[in-house]
Formats: sequence, C-alpha cells, structure tokens
Amino acid sequence: MYKLFYIIFRPAFLILNALKLMRHLYIIRKFIFFIQLFIIVSALHAEDGHQLWLRFDKTKATFPCFSGINACDSRFAVKEFQYDWNEMTGNRLQVVNVLNNNTLVIGTLKDRNIVSFGVGNELKQLGMEGYIIKTIHQNNKNITVVASAGDKGLLYGVFHLLRIIQTNKFPQSLNISEKPSYAVRILNHWDNQDGSVERGYAGHSIFWRYGEKHPTVTDKDKVLWKEYARANASIGINGAVLNNVNASPDMLSGAYMQKVKAIAEVLRPYGMKVYLSINFSSPSALGGLKTSDPLDKDVVKWWNIKAKEIYQLIPDFGGFLVKANSEGLPGPQDFGRTHADGANMLADALKPYGGIVMWRAFVYNAGKDDRAKLAYKEFMPLDGQFRDNVIVQVKNGPIDFQPREPFSPLFGAMKRTALMPELQITQEYLGQGNHLVFLASMWKEFLESDTYCSGKGSTVAKITDGTLLKSRLTAIGGVANIGEDTNWCGHHFAQANWYSFGRLAWNNRLSSDDIAEEWIRMTFSNDSNFIKPVKEMMLESHEAVVNYMMPLGLHHLFAFGHHYGPEPWCDVPNTRPDWMPKYYHNAGEDGIGFDRSATGSNAVEQYISPLREQLNNIDSCPEKYLLWFHHVPWHKKMKDGHMLWDELCYTYNHGVKQVRQFQTIWDKAEQYVDSERFIHVQTRLKIQAHDAVWWKDACLLYFQQFSKRPIPYDVERPVYDLNDLKKTKLNMTEHN
Amino acid sequence: MYKLFYIIFRPAFLILNALKLMRHLYIIRKFIFFIQLFIIVSALHAEDGHQLWLRFDKTKATFPCFSGINACDSRFAVKEFQYDWNEMTGNRLQVVNVLNNNTLVIGTLKDRNIVSFGVGNELKQLGMEGYIIKTIHQNNKNITVVASAGDKGLLYGVFHLLRIIQTNKFPQSLNISEKPSYAVRILNHWDNQDGSVERGYAGHSIFWRYGEKHPTVTDKDKVLWKEYARANASIGINGAVLNNVNASPDMLSGAYMQKVKAIAEVLRPYGMKVYLSINFSSPSALGGLKTSDPLDKDVVKWWNIKAKEIYQLIPDFGGFLVKANSEGLPGPQDFGRTHADGANMLADALKPYGGIVMWRAFVYNAGKDDRAKLAYKEFMPLDGQFRDNVIVQVKNGPIDFQPREPFSPLFGAMKRTALMPELQITQEYLGQGNHLVFLASMWKEFLESDTYCSGKGSTVAKITDGTLLKSRLTAIGGVANIGEDTNWCGHHFAQANWYSFGRLAWNNRLSSDDIAEEWIRMTFSNDSNFIKPVKEMMLESHEAVVNYMMPLGLHHLFAFGHHYGPEPWCDVPNTRPDWMPKYYHNAGEDGIGFDRSATGSNAVEQYISPLREQLNNIDSCPEKYLLWFHHVPWHKKMKDGHMLWDELCYTYNHGVKQVRQFQTIWDKAEQYVDSERFIHVQTRLKIQAHDAVWWKDACLLYFQQFSKRPIPYDVERPVYDLNDLKKTKLNMTEHN
Repeated sequence: MYKLFYIIFRPAFLILNALKLMRHLYIIRKFIFFIQLFIIVSALHAEDGHQLWLRFDKTKATFPCFSGINACDSRFAVKEFQYDWNEMTGNRLQVVNVLNNNTLVIGTLKDRNIVSFGVGNELKQLGMEGYIIKTIHQNNKNITVVASAGDKGLLYGVFHLLRIIQTNKFPQSLNISEKPSYAVRILNHWDNQDGSVERGYAGHSIFWRYGEKHPTVTDKDKVLWKEYARANASIGINGAVLNNVNASPDMLSGAYMQKVKAIAEVLRPYGMKVYLSINFSSPSALGGLKTSDPLDKDVVKWWNIKAKEIYQLIPDFGGFLVKANSEGLPGPQDFGRTHADGANMLADALKPYGGIVMWRAFVYNAGKDDRAKLAYKEFMPLDGQFRDNVIVQVKNGPIDFQPREPFSPLFGAMKRTALMPELQITQEYLGQGNHLVFLASMWKEFLESDTYCSGKGSTVAKITDGTLLKSRLTAIGGVANIGEDTNWCGHHFAQANWYSFGRLAWNNRLSSDDIAEEWIRMTFSNDSNFIKPVKEMMLESHEAVVNYMMPLGLHHLFAFGHHYGPEPWCDVPNTRPDWMPKYYHNAGEDGIGFDRSATGSNAVEQYISPLREQLNNIDSCPEKYLLWFHHVPWHKKMKDGHMLWDELCYTYNHGVKQVRQFQTIWDKAEQYVDSERFIHVQTRLKIQAHDAVWWKDACLLYFQQFSKRPIPYDVERPVYDLNDLKKTKLNMTEHN
Repeated sequence: MYKLFYIIFRPAFLILNALKLMRHLYIIRKFIFFIQLFIIVSALHAEDGHQLWLRFDKTKATFPCFSGINACDSRFAVKEFQYDWNEMTGNRLQVVNVLNNNTLVIGTLKDRNIVSFGVGNELKQLGMEGYIIKTIHQNNKNITVVASAGDKGLLYGVFHLLRIIQTNKFPQSLNISEKPSYAVRILNHWDNQDGSVERGYAGHSIFWRYGEKHPTVTDKDKVLWKEYARANASIGINGAVLNNVNASPDMLSGAYMQKVKAIAEVLRPYGMKVYLSINFSSPSALGGLKTSDPLDKDVVKWWNIKAKEIYQLIPDFGGFLVKANSEGLPGPQDFGRTHADGANMLADALKPYGGIVMWRAFVYNAGKDDRAKLAYKEFMPLDGQFRDNVIVQVKNGPIDFQPREPFSPLFGAMKRTALMPELQITQEYLGQGNHLVFLASMWKEFLESDTYCSGKGSTVAKITDGTLLKSRLTAIGGVANIGEDTNWCGHHFAQANWYSFGRLAWNNRLSSDDIAEEWIRMTFSNDSNFIKPVKEMMLESHEAVVNYMMPLGLHHLFAFGHHYGPEPWCDVPNTRPDWMPKYYHNAGEDGIGFDRSATGSNAVEQYISPLREQLNNIDSCPEKYLLWFHHVPWHKKMKDGHMLWDELCYTYNHGVKQVRQFQTIWDKAEQYVDSERFIHVQTRLKIQAHDAVWWKDACLLYFQQFSKRPIPYDVERPVYDLNDLKKTKLNMTEHN
C-alpha cells in the first residue's frame, strides 16, 4: 500500500523537498502545508474498495443546486444526507426553515411541510418503508421533497436520491414513488462462531472473531458493523441472520446473545433487524432437557422462555432461520414429527413479539428417488399447515446453487404456504473469489420463470412478492459474500452481487442491465466509455461461466468438498451417490444427462402444465436445461444443426473465448480505473481465463471417453492431459 | 505397452477363444494358428518409433517389379537390400546370375557387370562414398543398377534406392548420381562416461551405461549399436564422437578404450568411424606427466604413444574432438600457447594414421568485450596456422545454439583454415524433449547465409563444403539427440532432426521441404492427406518457436541452468554477466536489444561488406536480427507499420496461435497415425501450447515494465502474473 502511494506521489514529495529548502518564506510554508494535507488525504482514500458503491465521482457527476435542507428535526436520514452531501461536494448543506427555490425537504408525515404538499395518502399506501421523491412547484419555487410514512422509508428515500446524484441521473423534475417487493430482505451469513465462514471467500466473519472462544465487542467492531449496516440500508436490505444455518446450540447462550444485542444496536438505526439460525436440538443440547421433540411441553416451554429472553435483550429481534433434518442436522423428524410441527412450535414462541420463522426446504434425505424431487416430496404434503409467521425458504433451484438450474417446483406448487427464495450471493459454485460473475442475470432468469400456477405469467417473482398470492408474509434471502477483507467481498466485482441482491429484494422488476449500470456508475465511473463495455461484460458473465463450466443443463461436475474446479470423474468410495458428479451427468456411450422425463425419474411431473409437458419433451425442452431433464444421445441434432457432442465442445470453447474477451475489455478500461482496483481485477480475470481452459479441457476430455468423437477442429485444442487433471488436487478445504 | 496391445487386440482374442471351443475341426485350428501369428507379428511391430524412418508402408507404396538381384558376392550392401526388401514385401529377392528384364544389379567397380555398363569414369569421379542409381536399357531389358567405386558408396546407394521405394517415388527410369557435400559427417555425443547425457532429453547414453564404473559390453549393446549404425548409414552419417566435449582424461584409459574398440567394430560395416573427445590435460592427469604443455617434448611423446595405442586397437579411428580453454576446461593457453599450437601437436600425432583433429572455436574467455565477438577475436589471428588435418569446429551462431542467431562471422573470415559447422540436433534451447521443432529450416537458413567472403553468393554452405575454397578437409558436426529411449530421440518428431542433419550433411543443397516430405513418408505415411498439413506444420515450426520464445533477434532469455523456460529477469549473484539474460536483452525504458552496431560493441565489423553495413544500419538490418544487433526504442516503427513494442506483442501472440494450429493439424491427422505415436505427439503438443503461453506472458509482462505501453488489445491477454512466474522454478537439472 505505502509503496504504491509512494510511487504515485513521489513527484510531489520531490517538489516538496525542493520547496522546503526555501521555507523561510511564509507563503511557501503555507503551500507546503496544503500539499502535505493533499498527500495525506489522497492516501487515506486509497482505492481499496472498502467504500463499496457509496463513492462520489466529483469530477463527472452533475450536482443538483440545493439551496438548503429543510427538516423539522435532526432525523437520522437527514444526517445521513448531510454527511453524504459533504462527501460529494465538500460543502455542508445548511438547515433552513424557509422554503426557498431549490430547497430540499426531507421528512415524514409528522412534518408539517410534508403534510402541506398533499402527499399523505400516497405515503400511507407505500407503507413505512416506501417513499416518494418529487419536485414540487410551489409559489414559483422548485422544491425537492423526500418523504415517507416512516423513518426507515425516509432513509431509503435519501439513499435513492443520493443514487440519482451518484449515477449522474438527476433530472429536471422528479416524480418517484417506491415500496419494496418483499417485506423481509435478508442476508444469511453462514458465519460460524469460531470466525470461519462456510463457503466464504472474503476472509473471516465480521461478526465472530476468528480464534476467539468468548465473544467480545470492540469499538472497531462497531465501526465495521455500522459501515455494513449503512451499505445494506443504501440498497434496502433490512435484516441479517448472523450465524451459519449449520448452527451450534450454544448460539443461544448468554455470551453470544450479548454480542447479538450489541450488533442489533448498531444495525437498528439503519433499519436492520438481526435474526439467528438455531439448532433444533437446542432444548436438549443447551437446555439439558431429555428431548427436543416439538410437541413436548417442556420443549415448548423452553422455547417460550428463550424467546422472552431474546426479546428482553433485543426488542426488535427478527426471528429464526432453521435448517432441520437436512445434511445430518437434527429436526422434528427425529421425533416422528413433521417440518410443520417443528416450525409452528417455534413460530408460536416468537409470535407474541412479532418474530418470524424461516424454515429451510433444502432437504434430500428420502430414499433412493431423484434428489431433485425430494424437497417437493417432503414439503408438498405440508402445504397449508404452517402458521402465518412461518415462511418456507426454498433455494432457487431443486439441487444446490448450481451455475444454472431450473426453478424449484415448490414455487407455484405450495399455494397455501408462504415461500421465500433463498439465493446464494457467495459464489460457492461459480468460481468463488476468483471469477467475475454478475449474478443479477441468473436471479432475474429465476424470478421471471413462469410457474403457470395461476395461468401464464405466474412468475416466481409475482408469486413470492404477493402480487398473485395476496396477503402473505413476503421475504427473500441471500447467502452473504461478506467477510473481513478490506473490500468486503474478495473480488471487487463480487460487491455487485451484494448490491444486486439488495436491489432485486427491493424491486424485483428491475432489469439486470439497470442494476449493473447503477453499480458501475456508483462504484467506478460515470464515463460511458467505461460503462458500456464493462456492463456488457457483467451481463454476459453468467452465461460465460455456465458455458465453460456446465452448459446445456449439466450440473454438479465439481470437485468434491471445495466445489471450485472440475471433477466430472470424481468417485469417492462410501459416499452418497448423489454427492458424486456421475449421478448427475450419467455420461455413457449412449449419451449424457439425467433423464427426469416421464420415462426417467419423472421429476418433470412436479412442474405445472403446460411447462411439465414442455420440459418432458426432448424437442421442446429449452436447450439450456436439456441435460438437466434428459439423457441425450451424443449424435442428437441440436437447434443450430450441430450434434450434441459438437455443441458441447463449441459451448465450452465459447466460454473460454468469452472470458478472454472480458480480459480485453478490462485491460482497455485501465485508463478509467485506479491502478489498485484495476490490477486486483486483472489478476483475477487471468485466473478465470486459466480456469476456463481447465474446465473445458477436463470436461471435454472426460466426456470424450464416452462420446468417442473428435473435438471439432475449429475448437481450440486441449492443453491438459486427462490423467494429469485427475491427479490435480487443490489444497482447499470446504471453508475458506 | 502390453496393455495397449491388449486393448487393440482384445476383440481378436475374444474371437480366438470362441474359435478354440471348436478346435476339433482341423480347418479352424489352422485359422487359429494364423490369427495367433498375426497377433504376435503385430505386437512385435508396436508403433513405438524404434524403427525410426526405416519403416515400410506396404499398403501405400508402389514396389518396383525386380525379377532378381545380381551381385558378384555377398557384399554387405546386398545383404542389407535383401533384408529390407523382405521387410517391405515379405519376399526374399533371389540372387540371379543372368541379367533378365527388371534385374537389380548391385556392385562396385570390382564387378564385371558394372564395368560392362560403362559407368567406371563417373563412379571414379564420385569417390568411394558416391554412387549412381540408373536404369540401363540393354538388349531390350530394363536393368536397375546401383553402383559405387567403394563399399561405403554402395551401401549409401542401396539406402537411396530403398528411400525411393519407401517414399513411393520409384520412377519409370532412374538416373541418379550422388556424392556427399562433406567428407566427415559426424555426430557429437555429449555422453558422459557415467551414462548421463549433457543436454540429452531421450534417456541415458547408448554407449556408456548409467551407474556403471567399469565399462562392459553386452550382446544387447551390440544390437542397439548396430541399429544405430544402420540408421546413420541410411542417411549418410559416417562418424560419431562417443563422449562429451567436456571430456574426462580417463576416457583414454584401457578399460574405456576396450569399449570404444567394441563400438568401432559394430559401426565399421556401416561405414562409420569412431572419434573421441579428449581432455587437453590428459598427459598430466592420466599420464602422470608434470605438464600438458603442447610444446613439451614429453607431452608430444605421450600423445604419439597414445595415438599409436589407439590405432593398434582401432585401425580406422577417426580422430579427436577438442574443447580447450573454454568454460573452464584446460587448453594450450594454460601454458602460454595458442589454440594452433595445441591442435597442431595433436594433429601431428594422428597424422601417420590418417586421423584428424576437430578443434572447437566455442570460446569466450577474453575480457570484457561483447561475448559474440570473442571467438573471432581469439581465432582470426591464427588463420593459416593450422595443420591440414585440423579443422576448426564453429557453432552456427556467435553465441550458443539460440532459437535464432545470425551466422558466426568466423565463416567467411578464416579463409586459410578448414572450418566445420557445429549444429545442435538436441534441442537444448528449443523446447528440449517437449516441443516439436523441425530444425532443417533453421540449418538451411544458416547454410544459405551469404558471408560475401568471395563476393555475393559466398554462402556458408559453399565455403564449408569446398565449393568456393577448394581442396580442404570438409566436415560438419551435429550434437546428437540420441538416448536410450525406445524411440531414440524422446519426441517422435525429434527423429526428423537426426534425419535432417544426416541428409544435409550428405547434400547441403536439399531443401527443408524435401527433407520433411521424405521423412514424413518414410516415418508415417505416403498419404498426401497426411503429408501436406504435417509438412506445413514442420516447416513452420522453427519460426513458431522463435516467435513465442525470442522473436526479432532476442536471445538467451532462458532460465538459468536448464535452459527450458523463460527467465528474462534472471539475476544470479556472483555469476558471469554474460550468462544472464539482461546482458543480452538490455531492456530499459529507452528500448530493448544489444547494440552491436558501430556505436555499440561493433560486432558488425566482424562481418564482411556489404553485409557489415547492412547489419550496422538499424533500417537495413533484417528485422529477424534487429534486437541482436541494435538497441531499439520501443516506439521504433517497423516495416509493417507497428511500433516495436506492438510488433513484439503480436509476434509472441502469433507464436501461440501457430502452436495451437499445430495441435489442430495433428488432431486432424489422427486417422492416418497409429494411436501410440498419435497420443505421444498430441501430449507433447499440449505441453508446447501451454509453454508458448508461458513464454509469451513471461516475456511480455517482464518487458512491459520497461515499455510502459499496453499490450495491443487484439492480442490474447496474459493469464499469468509476473510475480508468480518469477517464483516458478522447474525442478530440472542441467542434465536430463
């Protein structure tokens, strides 16, 4: 760091030393002071990415000419705006009482001025988190108004106004009204209490100190948590589950709860609630009871007391996230009870305080059937049995955060149960900390998927946000990619995924194009020479990773354990077959892919007509899902005329080319980016380009053993040997 | 091996077992016998490359319809032809006395029939190694005649006839007369007596057993040496230096000399003489004398006795190869004598027996001057002082077997001294055992270089083969790439370089195109679908390796010690500066390259006008030698309009693309090649493609630190980081 700083400012230092020789002159001494100040300030603003998207490009932005700020009291949102305005312009926006031309008015319905603008009804309809931003013409004056029914909405409105300024899109006249798509917009931190982060690629936990057995809180923690909360508020995220879904019972013990309380206090002003993952056997494991049976009176009592304790510490505590009877964790089925029995018991305990239960549907224990069918088989019989403060959290796809999956058929099927999508922001299966993959494209594909549950147009978005199935608890969760790394997310472009999750949780109708452009403008530059190619790269990046990893519906070809590189050949003895790639790709001389049609596992039956029939038919099934739903002969003719094997080869090859093109785009962008972030991203793109070739070679050489056909000669030839690749073992553990 | 054989012939075995069940039937038993025979024969002919180019593609070749063979006695050449004809056709060609139509006549001037054809004068002019191959029309009969003045020529003629048949080029009428370009056509084996091979990439020595302290000879050795001698005879090589130029004095001791005698006896029938590298301090180190001063009487006497001993053992012993006062080895300068003093003393000792001395000019000890000038500076003053049985052996370039060098200025300058080119067949600086590089192109470039020593057209070929400077000892040496590997040379395509050296030593007017085609036809296939692309690949391969390793005259950017990968940054403390890459590339912000013009080291002065002036001028110097002779600014405009830096980038990139194209060519050729050799070569091409990217990234990223310019955006982006590359150390020693 200092070295870079030294290189950049070396000329300034040299001038400085020269000037020092003449410092008997007062005027020069003053000049030296300012130069010193400039150097120090510049160094403090090192481009390390810690500021996330809350950056202000003074040189390119057009600022509105606010004459002053009017606000009836020193509300949090007003302070936030004053702080940011100062950051942007270097000036403090003075508080004024009289509404002059260009006055900015920030307030809720408690403020007399807001009421006088006649926006009361609209604000009430938008709810406590909604807001308006409008230009009001009054007495020949233009007045900018940010207003909400509540303080949280006001903060969101202020950040919206800031975003407009940051992205250089401040118009002549404003007329914005917004309310969130989902009531609960929540990050799931898979942070272990020992400070490690499961599937985390950005350093250790920001909540739980690595190597610390007894939780403590420092002032430095609070500064970091505040920055974290402010970033979340700026994109509308209003909740965080502070610990891993693979939860330890002692999370609910006193020492940890004291730290949760401390975190909650820092997050509260930014409109964020804290939630906890709980271990279902906590009553026995932590409480010393004989059982954790959800229908046992003592167990019920234990949870009721525990809930009361929690709410005494944290009055706005959000609730529990539960992974039960999944991947070896305890749950109600251990006592012959159902998921509904378990979830409802917890929901009843939280109900008096307004808490909710998010109960995960990521289960695949039942017998020998196709893993993709198991969650549906377990949960569908329970439809309608859950309390109204329970929401079932369903991963976007039926397997597990693969580079591309069709949507889980539970969406649309469970009509009498509140469902919340679980998205994964951290890139467990998408190149982790090394690959540039913009996930908004993937999430939009999921949200826009048509379930047909109420006829055509019944998209996942509309059935989860309450548009189609009304008066429900609505929520969306994202597995966080946040850690102690200075830039929070490891890869600078991984910040875009945190950003995108928040923006889509707020407004699931936003396009990935719009989100990408907002983020680029705020994070890097408002220069269109930079925005256009970089946005194209981001929007293409998900398709690219699918192409070079698992095209045409292939899935789970990953190396065992760390899920980073390719291991389509992986075969670990005495392991569940459905943890092995062969279970999914089924490559043989007759073809490749998982037959989930009516002649196979019939997983297609879990989808609603006419989608069911479309997926069931090998000719109408979208090619991007072909090998997910069908076992397809190598010579099968694809829509573009290639046979399947050739298509597979061309697609992998195209993926490699796409990443190389990303490198070119980024290298060309050098002049628009600080060197620190430029080199950081450039280095990772090199790894990505290298890995793309690795994936292509590994998969093509492995599958070629079955296809027994040449790789088309206009495809770049492999540079690896299959046997060497099979010997390659990365020294990575499951956790970062 | 057996496994592959088993896989290929498994179906045959299965049929066989099925048939065995019915073997009470006689006819089936007979069938089984033939199938067994077929399998065994096929297995013996495993495609492991051991046969080199002495292979017979029965399916594609058109055989001449010889009715019988006429030869007055059972001469060696006749036996060779009979053996090969049997290999090719499966029939033995019977010896006949009467000349019928299509009789093949093989004989020397001692044979009555040959004399009767009236070819005596022609044969005498062609010498003992020359030959004719003619179709004689006599009494309405077509008679094919292979004739020579001597037995060696007859053997060469027979191999020429075989080559015509092998390459499917047997014409209606033959009229060939040949004699060699060089009298001595010799392999230099850098084989140490401990069995290791310096710069050998094909296993241990075929002459000195690895790990053996006291030399022994086995029947297996003799079989291998015979195969070796036959292969050499087939391309006209008539000598071999059996030990490393870095010679140990005890090479001349009794035990080793007994083994040399045994080798000589195996090689003799194939027209090959053996030679030895000697250590100049042998008289003191081995003989116990006080000195090895070449003008000391006892030393002279010691060498005279030693020569006598040698010739008593080996009457046709060829002579000595000497590396003296070079890279730490002893020499006459240790005693204040000159190279001429040393060489002449040895030459006098060998003279009575017809032996010669090959004295190497690879020296660079003198002071601080440009290393490229030092050999010239040491040897030019000695021009005219050497005995007529001394020949000075000069490496093709002034430095050391770099991917591309201009010719050494000693060629053309030393007009009164016999000079022999030293070429390196083993690919020390050309990807060693992994890269496919056809060296005939490089050697032709060298041989066709115009020295201007007797005006325009004074090529290296013409001044070394006696065309321009008459009545001299002529010779050419090649550092062998032969080892114990089954396929002799490590890489199957490295065999082509052994082949090419022999063919060019025989006839330096052959084109690399013709040599490549001959070799492909003999080694792989006469199918033009195979020949055309593979020949193109071979002919392009030297330019490709120059492009991805050291284009535009760059040289010696190699990793220290092993000389395999790139290390332009290499800086080993306390090492000779002229062993460091920086000495040669001189990269700085002002440009790159070694200024050897009149404003620099003035090495150009060692060349003869008008070449001297052409090289001296940055604008007329051929671009392929630009950075060899000039330090060139990064922005210098090249002939194609690119600036130097961009040109460098494009050239490296083109090299990578060329290798990838080689991969495609080879993969397409799969159907024409046995799987064993196909996979062998395919695997190495993968490594080569991988290495090409490594070279490109290492050199461009390193030099970019000085050029401070972007890599043009249509160049494939680097996938490595410079700092990572700097840390990469291959676990290779100097010797294989």
